[in-house]
Amino acid sequence: MKPSPTVREQIVAGAADMIGRRGLNATSIRETAKYTGAPLGSTYHYFPDGKQQLAMEAVRHTGEWTARSLRKALEAGPVAGLRGFLAVWRRIVVDSGFQAGCPVLAVSIEEPPVDDETPPALAAAADVFTTWESLLADSLRTHGVEPRQAAQLSTLIVAAVEGTVAMCRARRSAQPLDDVAEQLEAIVLAAIRN
Amino acid sequence: MKPSPTVREQIVAGAADMIGRRGLNATSIRETAKYTGAPLGSTYHYFPDGKQQLAMEAVRHTGEWTARSLRKALEAGPVAGLRGFLAVWRRIVVDSGFQAGCPVLAVSIEEPPVDDETPPALAAAADVFTTWESLLADSLRTHGVEPRQAAQLSTLIVAAVEGTVAMCRARRSAQPLDDVAEQLEAIVLAAIRN
Repeated sequence: MKPSPTVREQIVAGAADMIGRRGLNATSIRETAKYTGAPLGSTYHYFPDGKQQLAMEAVRHTGEWTARSLRKALEAGPVAGLRGFLAVWRRIVVDSGFQAGCPVLAVSIEEPPVDDETPPALAAAADVFTTWESLLADSLRTHGVEPRQAAQLSTLIVAAVEGTVAMCRARRSAQPLDDVAEQLEAIVLAAIRN
Repeated sequence: MKPSPTVREQIVAGAADMIGRRGLNATSIRETAKYTGAPLGSTYHYFPDGKQQLAMEAVRHTGEWTARSLRKALEAGPVAGLRGFLAVWRRIVVDSGFQAGCPVLAVSIEEPPVDDETPPALAAAADVFTTWESLLADSLRTHGVEPRQAAQLSTLIVAAVEGTVAMCRARRSAQPLDDVAEQLEAIVLAAIRN
């Protein structure tokens, strides 16, 4: 039996959802506690380094469950993997009435404090993008796409999905995702066949 | 002679830059005044409806100058247009040390206030995406791509550019943009030749 999520895990998942909806700057430890129903004290207990720690874990959390789902979908090949990846994001956007999005993108586009080291959440976002790209690129290579094209195509897929989620939210419609899905599928099929 | 920008135009351009760097929630009228060196009173004078009005105009401002640059680049065909569009965003990201980005994307991914009409800035973002897509799609159709593919491909291009800008910022590198540029160029060339 799968163990039920701990309070800590619930806070991280809630933070990921909030950051995907509102962005990093509008997400506070206090708001996350309220949002997840966790006692405020527990958030400070679990995340002594504050918001950047929570944001970093939220980004990793999103990275990991998406990677698990992508890895599973890729077992049936790159086109199935692409479809699975797009379906995950389509569900998040549509089921939330176009209000939820990707916390990895959100963290990437908010300027870090000046004169600071790379903030941990931003570094985590870069790692997550790399993980998703690697999974897609490995699958493309296994199916005969030469390494350079496989790597570039996987970057295109991740970028297109991230951008399209934002376009769907602006337009309050899943049409951009469906249009991009059709094009990416044709592109992946052509790359495999060559 | 081109007239020098008015105080109002300077505030709008400054707000566009700030929203692209920090997101919408972290951009205030007060901060924008400070950032652009405009008297605080003038911002309230020019933007009586507050932050949403300023954000809407910032989004439109970005949409318009990018569309002008894209329209000009497209005069030499879809591949030149694509290159010009990518070059604009590459310059913004690289010249800012990977801290600046796209205010249209930023506005799209921050949840609007609950129970509200669609906020004007979000509606403006949807319009800007549509304008960019239409310019690209028109050029693709003129160069022989059938309408459905032209429309979908232009959505893919806009989405990919937006997503890649975020990936470049997370990775502190222009590599994702260069990789996506190479793939998109091959895709557009193949579509034109078919």
